[in-house]
Amino acid sequence: MVQRISLAHGEGGELTHQLIQNVFIKSFGHPEHAQLDSAIVTCPTQTIAVSTDSYVVKPIFFPGGNIGKLAITGTVNDLAVSGAIPQVITAAFIIEEGFQLNELKKVVESMAAEAEIAKVKIIAGDTKVVEKGSVDRLFINTTGIGEIRQEHRINPGAIQKGDCVIVSGTVGDHGIAILSARHEHGLFTDVESDCASLNHLIQELLEEIDGIRIMRDPTRGGLATTLVELCEDFHFTVELDEVSIPVRRDVQGACDILGFDPLFLANEGKVVMIVDSKNAHKVLAKMKGNVLGENATIIGHIASSDEQTGKLLLKTAMGTSRRLHRLAGMLLPRIC
Amino acid sequence: MVQRISLAHGEGGELTHQLIQNVFIKSFGHPEHAQLDSAIVTCPTQTIAVSTDSYVVKPIFFPGGNIGKLAITGTVNDLAVSGAIPQVITAAFIIEEGFQLNELKKVVESMAAEAEIAKVKIIAGDTKVVEKGSVDRLFINTTGIGEIRQEHRINPGAIQKGDCVIVSGTVGDHGIAILSARHEHGLFTDVESDCASLNHLIQELLEEIDGIRIMRDPTRGGLATTLVELCEDFHFTVELDEVSIPVRRDVQGACDILGFDPLFLANEGKVVMIVDSKNAHKVLAKMKGNVLGENATIIGHIASSDEQTGKLLLKTAMGTSRRLHRLAGMLLPRIC
Repeated sequence: MVQRISLAHGEGGELTHQLIQNVFIKSFGHPEHAQLDSAIVTCPTQTIAVSTDSYVVKPIFFPGGNIGKLAITGTVNDLAVSGAIPQVITAAFIIEEGFQLNELKKVVESMAAEAEIAKVKIIAGDTKVVEKGSVDRLFINTTGIGEIRQEHRINPGAIQKGDCVIVSGTVGDHGIAILSARHEHGLFTDVESDCASLNHLIQELLEEIDGIRIMRDPTRGGLATTLVELCEDFHFTVELDEVSIPVRRDVQGACDILGFDPLFLANEGKVVMIVDSKNAHKVLAKMKGNVLGENATIIGHIASSDEQTGKLLLKTAMGTSRRLHRLAGMLLPRIC
Repeated sequence: MVQRISLAHGEGGELTHQLIQNVFIKSFGHPEHAQLDSAIVTCPTQTIAVSTDSYVVKPIFFPGGNIGKLAITGTVNDLAVSGAIPQVITAAFIIEEGFQLNELKKVVESMAAEAEIAKVKIIAGDTKVVEKGSVDRLFINTTGIGEIRQEHRINPGAIQKGDCVIVSGTVGDHGIAILSARHEHGLFTDVESDCASLNHLIQELLEEIDGIRIMRDPTRGGLATTLVELCEDFHFTVELDEVSIPVRRDVQGACDILGFDPLFLANEGKVVMIVDSKNAHKVLAKMKGNVLGENATIIGHIASSDEQTGKLLLKTAMGTSRRLHRLAGMLLPRIC
């Protein structure tokens, strides 16, 4: 018989207790999870980075991952790109009544496996169950805490004309994988989500190479929206070289059919960095030595800094230049 | 015209940016919220308490509060009862497409107001929007971080026979307020939720009085489930004195009609403590001096410690004694 989650699993009583013991503690293995109030942890430093994200991806299982893996990689990457070393993560589940217990176990096991890879501890949790129809299957929130090492502080203030923009690999994979898994727009592809924890790669780069000014993970809104935000927040103008931006052929093909631009599609295992031009090739070489960065490319440069309103320009294959803006109304909900 | 949240508000593009600026930053007022990746904070200590909870309460507005206020008080209290001084909180919103913007503003303003009362900073956030029908209106996750002061460490290891069990006020208010607001079971009452931040009261107690062994906030599952967990986890037996447990007349009346036991109903502004008998009256007096503890009562004592399997016993009004177990299958979903 298929075992299913019932409302009583979320009432804080006997069944909640069993669920915590048999599913969460079994996979996460930390006694702190048993303590429903708080986990006590000692951080290596007093200065920490904190990041929170709710994951509502649809479908919850997709080529290359599932909502559980994504909930770990997403929060790990948010911490890593802010220059922090991810340490601990909390996980809160909102489950629809009737959800299959074995699917929950699969998601939880993926989280435990990815936490192992990223070397973060899942220290505290929460489980809510809501009536059938009040949530679409399963949503997960993860909140992560990372150590900030003084020597790893990134320095956006040093950004200057000529600095290079580097992306760690192909763009748009996650977006197309999810659309494809939903069979939306009649799309069928073999594209897998790139979701992966980038913290080890980023930490190595920060430890070994100087001149990394700032990093971001181009998730919702894609590479273009991420860069527009950076340009506006830090008052510089980026010129991207369209032909150099790595895009998988099948991702580009799907985009051509659907009328999407891969620059606006979500990535879940990519980092974009602005790097001092002197060190850009060192960063590139280091990235290429890691499977998560093997398609790393210099895709543009800082065209000017100290602007009042920074902007993102795209030099097209035809040699013309146009300005890119934030994603506006592409209507790709629940991509992460 | 009623402004509503659209899917595009959750895409990470222009409308997300506007929502963050005009709703979240306007109320929370911290520039860190603008940074979608991580907030950087410096904690007063390296040892911290971390707590996470998702709030799915239905209805989202209820007498005495709303989902936003509850999302702050709930996480503040989880930190406070573990002996921590709440410092910072993250807030992640999952919003149903079509949700009214002014309702969101009202919730966010309540969060900001309660954070002000509790003296915690809301430092980072996340917003997801899902299609109509994929979530019931609005769910919020909050994750809090608190400072652990060495001198405030509670000490469950010292629990011994004769220690007193103190509850800070009437039990079952929140549970009945929510059921009443849902008009479930044809119930109409004037009961308001007790949801309130207890951190200042608790901090004063910890600073001024010795002998506080352990604390909990009796939320989901109520006072009884909370005490059963304590008895099992720390191997002692509690005897509660039924007649001394404070219950509002209208809460007791509603329970009598519905066949509920107030000991199993959720509270959101109450703390239960186990205190050295020498100091119990000091704790009681201090609590009674605070509006949040004015109905504080000694409701029982540790009947024995060092048990293999601790249990919760209830001495009834008739002088008999019966064992209470965890809440099992009362089916009161979405109480918090």
